[in-house]
Amino acid sequence: MALRLNFADSGFSDAFTALLAMKREVSQDVNDVVSAIIDDVRARGDAALIDYTRKFDRLDLQETGIAISAEEIEAAMGKVDGETLEALKFAHARIRAHHEKQMPTDDYYVDPVGVGLGSRWTAIEAVGLYVPGGLASYPSSVLMNAVPAQVAGVERIVMVVPCPDGELNPLVLAAARIAGVSEIYRIGGAQAVAALAYGTDTIAPVAKIVGPGNAYVAAAKKQVFGTVGIDMIAGPSEVLVVADGNNSADWIAADLLAQAEHDEAAQSILITDDAGFADAVEAAVESQLKTLSRAEIAGASWRDFGAVILVPDFVSAMPLVNRLAPEHLELAVDDPDALLPLVRNAGAIFIGRHTPEVIGDYVGGSNHVLPTARSARFSSGLSVLDYVKRTSVLRLGTEQLEALGPSAIALAKAEGLDAHARSVAIRMNR
Amino acid sequence: MALRLNFADSGFSDAFTALLAMKREVSQDVNDVVSAIIDDVRARGDAALIDYTRKFDRLDLQETGIAISAEEIEAAMGKVDGETLEALKFAHARIRAHHEKQMPTDDYYVDPVGVGLGSRWTAIEAVGLYVPGGLASYPSSVLMNAVPAQVAGVERIVMVVPCPDGELNPLVLAAARIAGVSEIYRIGGAQAVAALAYGTDTIAPVAKIVGPGNAYVAAAKKQVFGTVGIDMIAGPSEVLVVADGNNSADWIAADLLAQAEHDEAAQSILITDDAGFADAVEAAVESQLKTLSRAEIAGASWRDFGAVILVPDFVSAMPLVNRLAPEHLELAVDDPDALLPLVRNAGAIFIGRHTPEVIGDYVGGSNHVLPTARSARFSSGLSVLDYVKRTSVLRLGTEQLEALGPSAIALAKAEGLDAHARSVAIRMNR
Repeated sequence: MALRLNFADSGFSDAFTALLAMKREVSQDVNDVVSAIIDDVRARGDAALIDYTRKFDRLDLQETGIAISAEEIEAAMGKVDGETLEALKFAHARIRAHHEKQMPTDDYYVDPVGVGLGSRWTAIEAVGLYVPGGLASYPSSVLMNAVPAQVAGVERIVMVVPCPDGELNPLVLAAARIAGVSEIYRIGGAQAVAALAYGTDTIAPVAKIVGPGNAYVAAAKKQVFGTVGIDMIAGPSEVLVVADGNNSADWIAADLLAQAEHDEAAQSILITDDAGFADAVEAAVESQLKTLSRAEIAGASWRDFGAVILVPDFVSAMPLVNRLAPEHLELAVDDPDALLPLVRNAGAIFIGRHTPEVIGDYVGGSNHVLPTARSARFSSGLSVLDYVKRTSVLRLGTEQLEALGPSAIALAKAEGLDAHARSVAIRMNR
Repeated sequence: MALRLNFADSGFSDAFTALLAMKREVSQDVNDVVSAIIDDVRARGDAALIDYTRKFDRLDLQETGIAISAEEIEAAMGKVDGETLEALKFAHARIRAHHEKQMPTDDYYVDPVGVGLGSRWTAIEAVGLYVPGGLASYPSSVLMNAVPAQVAGVERIVMVVPCPDGELNPLVLAAARIAGVSEIYRIGGAQAVAALAYGTDTIAPVAKIVGPGNAYVAAAKKQVFGTVGIDMIAGPSEVLVVADGNNSADWIAADLLAQAEHDEAAQSILITDDAGFADAVEAAVESQLKTLSRAEIAGASWRDFGAVILVPDFVSAMPLVNRLAPEHLELAVDDPDALLPLVRNAGAIFIGRHTPEVIGDYVGGSNHVLPTARSARFSSGLSVLDYVKRTSVLRLGTEQLEALGPSAIALAKAEGLDAHARSVAIRMNR
C-alpha cells in the first residue's frame, strides 16, 4: 500500500510537506575515493585506466584495447534483432526531428543609438557521454544524450561505458552508431570521468560531460566541474499522474508501475478527485505487480515512496503539482487544456489519456532526460541548448562611444575603478 | 613586465600550454566550515543568522533587523549624487532593452503523425541574488544579475548583502531598487546562502541562487546545489586583446589595466602581430600604472599573470584565442569582421577600436557576468535563460498511440522494462 493523503484532512498540509521533504536516496560520501582516482588518472593516464578497469570491471584493457573498434560496433549491429533495430532508428528519427527545432539562432541588431548588439551560438567542440553498465545501460538514454549533441553540431561525441567482465549490451553500441557517437571507450566509474575531463594518451579531453551514473560517477562529475562543464546530477525518476474517475484504473496503474520499476528509489504519485477510483488503482497496482518481471523493485518503490492524494477538485491540486515539481506529469482528465496554464513546475507534461509517459521515454521525440527531485522548479530537461554556448558581441563607433561614454565613466568612478574610466575617456574627444 | 611569448619561437607550444594551465587562484578548502554553518542555519534559522552576522560582520541584526526597510532604501537613493543615479538608470534601461530580446518563446506544433510537441517556458518563482560586501560590492553587478530576472518575470528577487560594521554602499541599494529587487537582507557568507536555500522565519526560501562571492560563498553555493539551482562559480576576470600596430598603445594599455585593476588574480593578455607595438603597449602600461589609484592591484596582476603574445598574423592567432576561451575578447584590428567567424570560444567579443571592454561592463546593454577560467568552451554569459525553465509537452490521441506504440513496446522490451511496455500496450487495440 502506498501512502494515502486527503486534501480535506486537517493534517494534510504537514503530511504533504513531509512528502516533499522525503529523501529517496542514501547519499554516499565517496568524495575521497573519487578524488584519489581522479588524481591518479591525471598522473598516470592510460596506465591508471587499465589498473582501475582490471580492479572494478575485471577486464584487461591491454588485451581488448581501451577503444571499442569499428569492427566491434559492426558486429554489435549484427546481433540486434531487426524489430529492435528498426524501433531504435524510428526513435532516433523522431528525437532528431524534434531537437532540430531547438537550435537557437544568432541574433544581431543595431539599436537606436547605433550600437551593434548580438548573440552568436556555437557548438561545444567535444562532449563526453557517460553510459552506465549493467542494469541501467539503456540504449534509449544513449539516443537522448547523443542526439541533441549531434543536432548542435558537436564535432567529437565521446562515449564511455563500463563493461563489467567484458560484457556490453550490443543495443548500446547500435544506439551509439545510429546517434553519431564518434568514439567509444570501454571504461566507467570515476576513472572514466577523469579521463574525459583531463585526457590520457588514448583519450583526448572533452569540454563537457553528460549522462547518468552511480554515486562515484556523480561525485566525479561534481569534482571535475569547472575544468569541464557537466549536466545536472540525475536522481531517481518520478511520475505524478493527475487522473479523474473516468480513466481505466488499469491504464493508470500501469503508468505508476512503469515509473516504479526503474528503481526502488523511484516515486509514483497519483492525484485524483475520486476516492473510489483511487481504490481501484491501488487494487490494479497490486494485481499487475503479480505479473511483472521487476515486481520486486516496482513493489518496493510503490510501498516505500508511492502516494495517492485525494483532492476536492483539480484546480486546487495544481499548487500541489507545482510544489512537487515532478519530473513527469500526466494530465489524464477530461479537459487537460484547462489545467495546463496552471502548471508552472514540471519537467515534461503528458497531455490526455492516450499519452502515457512511456511514449516520451522512447519515441515521442522530446527528451527523456528531465529534472528530478523537484529541480523542475529551477531547471529544464536536456536539449540542444546544453550543447551550445552563446557569445555576446558589442560594436561601437566613435559616435556611440561619445553617447555611452559619460555614463560608463560615471559608474566606473562611482565603483572606484579608475582604469575602467580611463579606458573609455581616453577614446573620447573632450 | 608581463610574460612575453613569440609564436615563431621553438618553445612556443609548450609555453602557451603552460599559460593555459596557469592557476590564478589559491583554492581554499573551506568545505567543512561551510557545511557546519549551513547545518546550523537549517537548524536554528534566524538565530543562527544573528550569531554569524555578529561574529563575521560585527553587526547586531537584532538591533537593525535582518531585512533592509523601504525607508532605508529611500534614504540611500537620496545619498547618491544625481549624475551617478542618472548613469545607473541609463545603464538599467539599456541592459533591460537588450535582455528583453532574450526571452524565449513557447513553441507548440503538430507533427505529420499528428503528435503534438511543445516547449513551455516559465520563470523561476524566486531567485536569490548574492552581492558581496566591501571592495567588490558593485552596483553594476546588481543590475547585471537582477535585470534578466526582472525581464524573465521572476516574482521574488531576493538580495543578500553583508554589511561589515554596518556599512553598506548606498549605490548598491539604489541599483537594487532600480532593477526591481523585491527583498533585501543584510547578511552575507555561507549563512546567507543557507538562508536563501532553506529559508528561515524571516526569509522564505528561493529556488535558485546567483551572484559572485568569496570562497565561502562559492563553497556554500556548491553545497546547496540540488536543493536550489546555482549559476556558474565565477573566477577572477580576464581580457584578451587582439590588436594590430595601428592602435594607440595608450588605448590598449588602458584596456589591459582596466581588467588588471579588478583583482590581483585577474589576467590581461595582448596578442599582436607587431613587436614594436607590443613594446609600446608595455611602456604605456608602466607609465599609466603610475597614476592609477589601484596601481598595486593592477601592477601585481600584470606582473604575475599578464602576457604579450607575438603572432605572425591574426588568422594564426585565432586557434590560440579559442584555446584561451577568454571571458572578454577585444578585436582591435582593421577588419574585425574577417576574424569574427574564426572565434569559437569567448564569453563576449568587443568589436573594433572604439569598443573598449569597459562599455560592456556598464552600459553596452549586454551582460557583464561572463564565463571565466576558460569555461567559455562550454558555457555562456548570464541571460534571461538563466531565470526561466522549459517544460516539454507531448500529446497523443488514439491514432498516434497506434502509430508510435509498437516501437515504444519493442524498445521497452529490449530494455527489460515490462511495465513500460504494458503501459503502452494496454491502451492499444490489439
